[in-house]
Amino acid sequence: MSVLVAITGRDNTKLMAQLQARLPAIRIEEWPDCLNVEDIDFVLAWNAPESMWAQLPNLKVVSSFGAGVDSIDLKQLAEHIDVVRIVDDQLAEDMAEYVLTHILAQKLRLNEYFIKQAQQCWKPKRAHSHKNVGILGFGELGKKCAQKLVENSFNVSAWAQSYKSSTNVHVYYGDQGLDEMLTHIDYLVCLLPLTNATRGIINKKLLEKLSPHAVVINVARGQHVVEQDLLTALNNESLRAATLDVFDQEPLKNDHPYWQHPKITLTPHCAALSDLNSVINQIVENIECLNEGSKLNNLVDRTKGY
Amino acid sequence: MSVLVAITGRDNTKLMAQLQARLPAIRIEEWPDCLNVEDIDFVLAWNAPESMWAQLPNLKVVSSFGAGVDSIDLKQLAEHIDVVRIVDDQLAEDMAEYVLTHILAQKLRLNEYFIKQAQQCWKPKRAHSHKNVGILGFGELGKKCAQKLVENSFNVSAWAQSYKSSTNVHVYYGDQGLDEMLTHIDYLVCLLPLTNATRGIINKKLLEKLSPHAVVINVARGQHVVEQDLLTALNNESLRAATLDVFDQEPLKNDHPYWQHPKITLTPHCAALSDLNSVINQIVENIECLNEGSKLNNLVDRTKGY
Repeated sequence: MSVLVAITGRDNTKLMAQLQARLPAIRIEEWPDCLNVEDIDFVLAWNAPESMWAQLPNLKVVSSFGAGVDSIDLKQLAEHIDVVRIVDDQLAEDMAEYVLTHILAQKLRLNEYFIKQAQQCWKPKRAHSHKNVGILGFGELGKKCAQKLVENSFNVSAWAQSYKSSTNVHVYYGDQGLDEMLTHIDYLVCLLPLTNATRGIINKKLLEKLSPHAVVINVARGQHVVEQDLLTALNNESLRAATLDVFDQEPLKNDHPYWQHPKITLTPHCAALSDLNSVINQIVENIECLNEGSKLNNLVDRTKGY
Repeated sequence: MSVLVAITGRDNTKLMAQLQARLPAIRIEEWPDCLNVEDIDFVLAWNAPESMWAQLPNLKVVSSFGAGVDSIDLKQLAEHIDVVRIVDDQLAEDMAEYVLTHILAQKLRLNEYFIKQAQQCWKPKRAHSHKNVGILGFGELGKKCAQKLVENSFNVSAWAQSYKSSTNVHVYYGDQGLDEMLTHIDYLVCLLPLTNATRGIINKKLLEKLSPHAVVINVARGQHVVEQDLLTALNNESLRAATLDVFDQEPLKNDHPYWQHPKITLTPHCAALSDLNSVINQIVENIECLNEGSKLNNLVDRTKGY
């Protein structure tokens, strides 16, 4: 067997060396410089070229290099191929801390004060009193965020595809549930996986259901948001502000209107940065599982896409 | 009896009208337009002119218009005069939320990202991992802040004038205690009352004992900080950043170097804004106590100054 690393837009030198050191008996290759495509049964992928998949006749397992598998076109993979992803407890902790921090920052008007500081303008204003948060997505990340917000006296609702029970969060589901949740929240946090069902979910129709004092916080994928609809809502004053960590195209282009928008707080996809050591441990473990024929960790349900 | 309002630098029209409506039988006057200074036994004061005090022969009670009494020169008042202050539970809640928000904002580099956004610079960086907070002052505000930080997994120490016990906060006291606390904290929060003993406490000597990655957060009084010493520490890279809500002179002057300093997060004395209704309730109650000869609320220990 051999392992192929197909991660584009990133220098993989260190990653390759660490994998090889951990797995001395296995050949680790980097796309497109692989000697024998027939040997490859495990691919570590992030934004791999579409044309690559058809060239790997004996592929058995694809591992995403992150928590999401939206960078892998699952339709390209034969049904018997298993897909796994990275699950990092620290990622969920970091995500929850980011969401709490930025909701508090919006509540206490930090963005407004940063702009006023640059303008040398002294204008104290009372903090917002809003306490109602709605989370799109109630998986591992959504639950961790909800817990942290509840501990800080926020009233938390969440929306999931199907009903889930919770003692301290009101969980809505289905289209009607989403509409109900949107009408009474002050902060909307997007933590959904990116699938065909969730792409563009934060659009004109959804934004119109939010209160004009509401704030959108997107920490999932840029493609969840229809950028022009978000900008229109902010400019029409039908939305108070947005905090965005993820974008349709990353890094965000220089001429993008988000950069200088006074109602947008922008961070460069830093809400939850993977720890390379933890990621490598998980990849090595799954390569060993494949070798030994044992059950893979963090297997993705390919019909759901997460 | 009559009540004198001596609050400078503020339009008191609404306050005067509300006090008069609540106390129709009592004459409410505003300095310097009072008819008979001999009738005045209760003064509501904030930055009152020094020369005023000697002109009030029958003064019995002075109420500060805020939580601190540092705007009143206690030496000017005869010993038999009682001094009271405003205590507002919501103020402590708001202060704790401000402190948590701004510690998280420093931990997650919000100030750096705001500056980078303005420069259209995409540069993700890992959040700081620092978790050790030291609070100067362990009164009502210090305790509330400590509790909120502990609930959010920070390790909290506090420094008080004399020993105080606490189950989840390590309380230091005395000069040696202060030195001990300073050596191992990542965030220093100032919540001290302003007295002769605490004026200028955040100076070169104190700052030199902090780690170079430490952050100073001042939400007490501007006079606690020796401004030039703080600027020198930030410019020498012997201090990472500062969040300042209070200043020696407020509003902060236009040419002050704080405004444009990239390591300073500046807010316009908005950490805890009094609710006028709650303040008026407390003033009215103490005027009634004086009239009835019953015990005053929130009496200040004049020897301590708080």
